[in-house]
Amino acid sequence: MSDDRVLEQLAQVLESRKGADASSSYVASLYAKGLDSILKKVGEEATETVVAAKNGEPDQLVHEMADLWFHSLVLLAHQGLGPQQVLAELERRFGLSGLEEKASRQG
Amino acid sequence: MSDDRVLEQLAQVLESRKGADASSSYVASLYAKGLDSILKKVGEEATETVVAAKNGEPDQLVHEMADLWFHSLVLLAHQGLGPQQVLAELERRFGLSGLEEKASRQG
Amino acid sequence: MSDDRVLEQLAQVLESRKGADASSSYVASLYAKGLDSILKKVGEEATETVVAAKNGEPDQLVHEMADLWFHSLVLLAHQGLGPQQVLAELERRFGLSGLEEKASRQG
Amino acid sequence: MSDDRVLEQLAQVLESRKGADASSSYVASLYAKGLDSILKKVGEEATETVVAAKNGEPDQLVHEMADLWFHSLVLLAHQGLGPQQVLAELERRFGLSGLEEKASRQG
Repeated sequence: MSDDRVLEQLAQVLESRKGADASSSYVASLYAKGLDSILKKVGEEATETVVAAKNGEPDQLVHEMADLWFHSLVLLAHQGLGPQQVLAELERRFGLSGLEEKASRQG
Repeated sequence: MSDDRVLEQLAQVLESRKGADASSSYVASLYAKGLDSILKKVGEEATETVVAAKNGEPDQLVHEMADLWFHSLVLLAHQGLGPQQVLAELERRFGLSGLEEKASRQG
Repeated sequence: MSDDRVLEQLAQVLESRKGADASSSYVASLYAKGLDSILKKVGEEATETVVAAKNGEPDQLVHEMADLWFHSLVLLAHQGLGPQQVLAELERRFGLSGLEEKASRQG
Repeated sequence: MSDDRVLEQLAQVLESRKGADASSSYVASLYAKGLDSILKKVGEEATETVVAAKNGEPDQLVHEMADLWFHSLVLLAHQGLGPQQVLAELERRFGLSGLEEKASRQG
């Protein structure tokens, strides 16, 4: 699988956990605890990302950022959203389609 | 451009801003202010994501999550990293390759 | 003034700002922007406290912690609460009255 | 004990825990885990404070704010600081001595 499909794949996994028993999966247990518990994790992982960056250890930063993005996806799934909406917003905001088109014409 | 290339494309844009004048681009000004200022933005956007989720407004949540992911990418770029490492960690952690392989055999 | 009256005094100042014009005081402008803006500041100052602690600079940590406590008091005031409730909760939780009583008997 | 001595009293308790066994007290276990674990708690409690405020439940907000201030004090103690320095900074910044003096002259 190319790396750039990971968020979409992961979102599908998270969606499939919605029917799972809370005792059988970490994600299902987060859904069962509800929004406030998911938000607590988002805040916690953001702080751990900040600490990892200050430690200047690349592996730790990648690890914590993966935790932050993972819990971001759990939050989106819990709210009936997915990474596509966030990526579309980033694309719209930064005009990436235009940039790519321009780049391809220059190539 | 398919949505799933957005993070990679955006990382390239962020890389290209490293040579830019701080007065000419928001990202270049963040690089110039340094790590602590970038981390402050990551923490700020995480809090705004939490608030948006509590407000129950999908558009606001998508907007703030895009801000959070964007500043995550700025942080990674500033530390000489990129989204590929974070996505690879997520893929490794959740065995997505295996999931996809299994799915393709079922198809 | 002894240091330990500071939170109470500051709470009175914050209360008095509730009638002030948003253009005349920082606190009045925060009240006018509303809860979400105050919460954004709390999250921002918490992140800056974390960064300051990692920098190992005592003056910076004290400065950022003062910012965090200040915006905590603004949040409490905005919600019709004050430091007394938080201090009473801490006292209740840690049985400080009991500890002090015990200490005075040992003296 | 008057409420306004609580932070000072609590700081003394936290100081006394520095010699305690990590298995005997929550605070001693936090000291043993080190700065990054304490900072993680500060970030976590700040997020929970934000969530509580959005829930509009005063008791929950007081509870989470007490957690935030408590872990703030643990952080200060771990760094060889105490609430006096933060309160002195707040007093200096807001000229509370001057305010009180003026108020007493008006009385």
